[in-house]
Amino acid sequence: MSLLVVGSVAFDSIKTPFGEVEEALGGSATYFSTSASYFTDVQLVAVIGEDFPEKELNELRGRGVDLQGLVRTPGRTFRWKGEYGMDLNDAKTLDTQLNVFEHFDPVLPEEYCNAEYVFLGNIHPALQLKVLEQIKAPKFIGADTMNFWINGWPDDLRKVLAKIDMLFVNDAEARALADEPNIVKAAEKIKAMGPKRVMIKRGEYGALLFDDGETFFAPAYPLEAVFDPTGAGDSFGGGFMGFVARNGNLDRNTLCQATVVGSVMASYCVERFSLERLRQLGPNLIEKRYQQFAELTRFDPLAPLD
Amino acid sequence: MSLLVVGSVAFDSIKTPFGEVEEALGGSATYFSTSASYFTDVQLVAVIGEDFPEKELNELRGRGVDLQGLVRTPGRTFRWKGEYGMDLNDAKTLDTQLNVFEHFDPVLPEEYCNAEYVFLGNIHPALQLKVLEQIKAPKFIGADTMNFWINGWPDDLRKVLAKIDMLFVNDAEARALADEPNIVKAAEKIKAMGPKRVMIKRGEYGALLFDDGETFFAPAYPLEAVFDPTGAGDSFGGGFMGFVARNGNLDRNTLCQATVVGSVMASYCVERFSLERLRQLGPNLIEKRYQQFAELTRFDPLAPLD
Repeated sequence: MSLLVVGSVAFDSIKTPFGEVEEALGGSATYFSTSASYFTDVQLVAVIGEDFPEKELNELRGRGVDLQGLVRTPGRTFRWKGEYGMDLNDAKTLDTQLNVFEHFDPVLPEEYCNAEYVFLGNIHPALQLKVLEQIKAPKFIGADTMNFWINGWPDDLRKVLAKIDMLFVNDAEARALADEPNIVKAAEKIKAMGPKRVMIKRGEYGALLFDDGETFFAPAYPLEAVFDPTGAGDSFGGGFMGFVARNGNLDRNTLCQATVVGSVMASYCVERFSLERLRQLGPNLIEKRYQQFAELTRFDPLAPLD
Repeated sequence: MSLLVVGSVAFDSIKTPFGEVEEALGGSATYFSTSASYFTDVQLVAVIGEDFPEKELNELRGRGVDLQGLVRTPGRTFRWKGEYGMDLNDAKTLDTQLNVFEHFDPVLPEEYCNAEYVFLGNIHPALQLKVLEQIKAPKFIGADTMNFWINGWPDDLRKVLAKIDMLFVNDAEARALADEPNIVKAAEKIKAMGPKRVMIKRGEYGALLFDDGETFFAPAYPLEAVFDPTGAGDSFGGGFMGFVARNGNLDRNTLCQATVVGSVMASYCVERFSLERLRQLGPNLIEKRYQQFAELTRFDPLAPLD
């Protein structure tokens, strides 16, 4: 099945305790579509400026990412500059230049309107809504958001929540959206706003899936070298949605597997700057780390204690 | 097998967003021994003052905790007063009265010197060392510590580390002790200081066991009502060590199961103030939540991606 993603394509300048890069390829839709491309065809909806290099477009095309929805407009591509401290959990934004992204108006190519699997990256909820209105018969819609939209555009966000199947947020975002400190209750309150499922992304502490009634937890893989956490959440989302679209069903087994696949992709993403590591994968490496996740979490049943 | 624990017995006054208690029973050795008592006999080494009620002693005796090593000395029992904010991960200490704990000098009853399983609760490393020197033929020694000892008494702590089999610490403590931000590398560096195994306790994010070469992860159980996190780490340690002592072996399967058992005990501990919930358990409830942990983390193998 084809998977449509709308989000940002950007150039990131990033400093971590382990090094720095200038103007490396980034953006939520770039990480998402690269990750998802290992599992399914992807339709990319985003905007780039005149400065975006043809070779990056060819790289994406080469992995089965359809770029009809990637619009080039006059001006410069979106830029983000950030820095991470020792714990790597929080990015400090040093500079944001929206550039062409400021007037992004997602109009889908005709063919995209038939997409069954859709992911709304972390953009203004009014734009997420505009994408949704163009999709004719979606089968599964996932969406990401952040505190900036939760606090600033609650009405638009509520309209998005009413139409999606699954929300991807971190702990703090879930608590803020639900106005509830307990994460289990927060997930229930979010589900009451629309999505049947909520994925709580916890960075280096893993991911918690609140499914329809049941809960599933996947850890983050304990890595010796976490180089740059940028894009981990989007790589997770791309792996999850890509795997679901590939399998074409939404049963609990598939969603649990998809959560682990997402964690696999995120674990590779953070091993290098930008998309460097994420672009080098293949079925063998993905299967291998999936197996490592199985070993990391497997334990025997308990013999009766009496 | 009998399990010896040395630590604190205290009265805690605690405020959480969900309520407050005054002078409720607490202390690391109290939580630890109550939790471990569901799996094995426990020998308790600690100090109490003249004000400690007989009924609490009887409660401990009733669950198979040997109190020959619990010394009563003139003065008041240790008091701690703390408060938790909305995220429940960090306690703010409002008042500490060491009282009789200030001159605690652990001298083991003759019989205790034959203990095979030993847990050194979070006390001054010089006292932990003094206990160890009295143990004749230990089979497995676990120890807890904290930044206060890591920063203030590094030489004493190094001597403890050289003699123990497993260290129980949180992320920040592991990073401080190893002077290394990456948790996998930090665990390796700690292992080079002595203990063959390191358990990283992550509170509501679970626990990560660095075994001899292999790693295991158990999540914390996602609870709708976390009432008071005090004692969760000690209940985890008691469940882990109690289960290991009961099984009498140290193979990977046992240690992984013990990690889940520890997580089970911690998950019950935090459902009520003080030891209220921890005292009400039994084999059925422990087995039931263990099974819930299995369901929370179980996922199918991956079909080949090619």
